[in-house]
Amino acid sequence: MATETMSDGAILPAAFARVSGEIDAFFDTLLAVPDDGRAQLYRAMRHAAIGGGKRLRPLLVSAACALFNFDRDRAIRVGAAIECIHVYSLIHDDMPCMDDDDMRRGKPTVHRAFDEATAVLAGDSLHALAFEVLADPATHPDPYVQVELIAELARASGPVGMAGGQMMDLAAETAGDTFDLAAVTRLQQLKTGALIGFCLEAGAIMGRVRPEGRTGLRGYAHDIGLAFQIVDDLLDAEGDAAAVGKAVGKDAGAGKATFVSLMGVSRARAQAAMLVDQAVQHLHAFGAEADLLRAIARFVLERDR
Amino acid sequence: MATETMSDGAILPAAFARVSGEIDAFFDTLLAVPDDGRAQLYRAMRHAAIGGGKRLRPLLVSAACALFNFDRDRAIRVGAAIECIHVYSLIHDDMPCMDDDDMRRGKPTVHRAFDEATAVLAGDSLHALAFEVLADPATHPDPYVQVELIAELARASGPVGMAGGQMMDLAAETAGDTFDLAAVTRLQQLKTGALIGFCLEAGAIMGRVRPEGRTGLRGYAHDIGLAFQIVDDLLDAEGDAAAVGKAVGKDAGAGKATFVSLMGVSRARAQAAMLVDQAVQHLHAFGAEADLLRAIARFVLERDR
Repeated sequence: MATETMSDGAILPAAFARVSGEIDAFFDTLLAVPDDGRAQLYRAMRHAAIGGGKRLRPLLVSAACALFNFDRDRAIRVGAAIECIHVYSLIHDDMPCMDDDDMRRGKPTVHRAFDEATAVLAGDSLHALAFEVLADPATHPDPYVQVELIAELARASGPVGMAGGQMMDLAAETAGDTFDLAAVTRLQQLKTGALIGFCLEAGAIMGRVRPEGRTGLRGYAHDIGLAFQIVDDLLDAEGDAAAVGKAVGKDAGAGKATFVSLMGVSRARAQAAMLVDQAVQHLHAFGAEADLLRAIARFVLERDR
Repeated sequence: MATETMSDGAILPAAFARVSGEIDAFFDTLLAVPDDGRAQLYRAMRHAAIGGGKRLRPLLVSAACALFNFDRDRAIRVGAAIECIHVYSLIHDDMPCMDDDDMRRGKPTVHRAFDEATAVLAGDSLHALAFEVLADPATHPDPYVQVELIAELARASGPVGMAGGQMMDLAAETAGDTFDLAAVTRLQQLKTGALIGFCLEAGAIMGRVRPEGRTGLRGYAHDIGLAFQIVDDLLDAEGDAAAVGKAVGKDAGAGKATFVSLMGVSRARAQAAMLVDQAVQHLHAFGAEADLLRAIARFVLERDR
């Protein structure tokens, strides 16, 4: 694996910077503030969606685009749709009745910068916009592809995906000792894994890869998704709030079962490293065109925010 | 118009009962409670989505289906998708940070029966399910039709539709005197009119009516949408909470500008009656196949909840 790390230093920061600029530009146009009573709604969406955020999910879509040579503009539109879902979930999740967070991506959360009602509506609006973007013919000229993207994103974000995982997370706070590693793993596969999985699945759909040819990408997505969450738990347990951009130490404070509370720091770190190695091995059928995906896998392990 | 009222007594209650049963049955299957940490999420969705509610929007879709002879199962699936959006918006709108309502459809609101976090997630989950239902090939075999339905529903429910209207409504509470009849009309066209408009638009899309042939249906939708909201304001000002199924007198209490506060009760009632007459006139090109739509228009005026 040593040869594969060689070019990370060069390709990853440039790829992050490029996709971040493209996503910000897309949102700047999509979320132009109207001159009427909806102005605050748009300002709240812009506050949450523009500037800040790693843009890991759009980067994954654009990295998949490199595998299958589909149009980059389409990759950015799909990445923006996923980011609409991701950002709406952060806005709602930060609310007082959920995680009650004051800071996100180094800025006040939406309900702190505006108010709770605006946070509910900004989240709901970004949720609808995700599907409006995918249903636009500019995203893909083939409506079969559009419908498959929409069906998969709805599943990945709804009660059998992200929203279902968030509910499990709430239920976990009262479940206590009965919440073991298998349960945390299943919870995280829904809560964060499903949407990360969709990023790669979207690449395969737009690349017109048949379902039976998607096994490697699905394995990669599964492994980096889980590694991502383990590292999230490690950052919460050990990270610095200023670097992470949001409050840390919340899990232990809430007495929540996490990968770190169940495995301990060093086993959790080893598990994340093993998953990332395994993710890279899932890409064995690809050559240099998958170097960006390999670099992203290592970034997931080494990130500090 | 006297001849058109003739059969209302017969067709409308039967049509309401039939579509209500079909929508409840659809949700009963769609929202089967899983045996895991998501059980409460599904119970909350069932609480809000099954039993109760007029099902006016699904009835409008099935009435449009009678105009264009498309498959009734498809009409029910589209009606259920719209109802997912409608119900999610009620769940979020009832929350303490929004309208702070304890009762809805004669039952405790979701955040009262469960908790606020569950209400946020149940709303978000129904929102995603709306698009999952439309993206299912069972809704329509032609992906062009599916994509058009999805694009229109996303627009009607997002920041240029329902969610945008809700934001205007919040902004109105602080706008005071500057909020005139034109502003209230525009607000309501977004807040409730856009989704009612989509019910008829969906019928035209599935009936493969070209955009230029949809003028009459759009006029009908516009007029009953506005009449519906004026009657809502009248029920809030004059209605009985037990009959209406939710708290009344809230608008005056909040000092909100409404059709009733701006026009007075008798002018508002006359305006609603005029709009319903106009809605029926928009159907002049149709014969008996539009009798259900005509009966619905009159129901909008005469309803007591």
